[in-house]
Amino acid sequence: MSSSPQILSDAIRNVPDFPKPGIQFKDITPILSNPVLFQNAIDALIKPHQPGEIEQVAGIDARGFIFASAAALRLNAGFVPIRKKGKLPYNTHEESYDLEYGSNTVEVHTDAFSPGAKVLLVDDLLATGGTALAALKLLKRLKAQVVEAVFLVELTFLNAREKISHIPTRTIISY
Amino acid sequence: MSSSPQILSDAIRNVPDFPKPGIQFKDITPILSNPVLFQNAIDALIKPHQPGEIEQVAGIDARGFIFASAAALRLNAGFVPIRKKGKLPYNTHEESYDLEYGSNTVEVHTDAFSPGAKVLLVDDLLATGGTALAALKLLKRLKAQVVEAVFLVELTFLNAREKISHIPTRTIISY
Repeated sequence: MSSSPQILSDAIRNVPDFPKPGIQFKDITPILSNPVLFQNAIDALIKPHQPGEIEQVAGIDARGFIFASAAALRLNAGFVPIRKKGKLPYNTHEESYDLEYGSNTVEVHTDAFSPGAKVLLVDDLLATGGTALAALKLLKRLKAQVVEAVFLVELTFLNAREKISHIPTRTIISY
Repeated sequence: MSSSPQILSDAIRNVPDFPKPGIQFKDITPILSNPVLFQNAIDALIKPHQPGEIEQVAGIDARGFIFASAAALRLNAGFVPIRKKGKLPYNTHEESYDLEYGSNTVEVHTDAFSPGAKVLLVDDLLATGGTALAALKLLKRLKAQVVEAVFLVELTFLNAREKISHIPTRTIISY
């Protein structure tokens, strides 16, 4: 499986000027639509963990759901959604973070985890780390024990690791 | 597994007045967060299908991603996201549908499926059927062969089945 990251990386499509001019968007849909690459991606994300070790996998709205849900299934774990504000129906905690222009807010249900629950945080992309840090703050408020934060793609030049250096972090593909 | 639907139904949380007064929201997060119920839900969704039979599972943004992705993994299939307008980076087809107030648009990448690909459409909720019908139109434009449309929850009093009667449709829990 040591060749997986390169095979996955080769499948990612570079879309120029999305969502705005000057951004090179890393399109992961060619990985998803291919059964073998999709399985490889999930295998790579969960690799160090055994079924039974993780109680819940937390995924971030919306692309993170794709990887976190499949990872949860493979690990015999539950899945917990961390969502954009206003999407979760029950009582929530929320955390806001700054964007280049404006801010964003994510929420989690207040009863999403038992205190001490062993949780894996999964998302597709680690860019500035703003979303990841907000999600980790939510997990901390619920006293979840974050075993690891794992991302399919990391944009290393944005230095997100500095923001989340208190949590073991792993990425499969780095740019 | 014949008791699954009742066990799953019992776990769904009724949240009154969400997202607006008078609506009884069916909160499926208690199913997701429980490893056994989550596996049961995925098993129920894919039940009639064997690994290898389905080439791609299509999921609808955003809660549909959770079920469709895990179903794809279990079926050794690929996953294709059908997203709200403006979220997919590459060339897309789009379909709009009416809501009570205003309208909504969903998109799919133009290269998401090979012509004739055997596809399972998975979403969490069949309510009015507007989203499902729009998604099925997108799949038809790409010449995908929709083997079945399957939903975890159906609100039967909204008569969605009339809209999508041309496609084999199955639901796990009906209200």
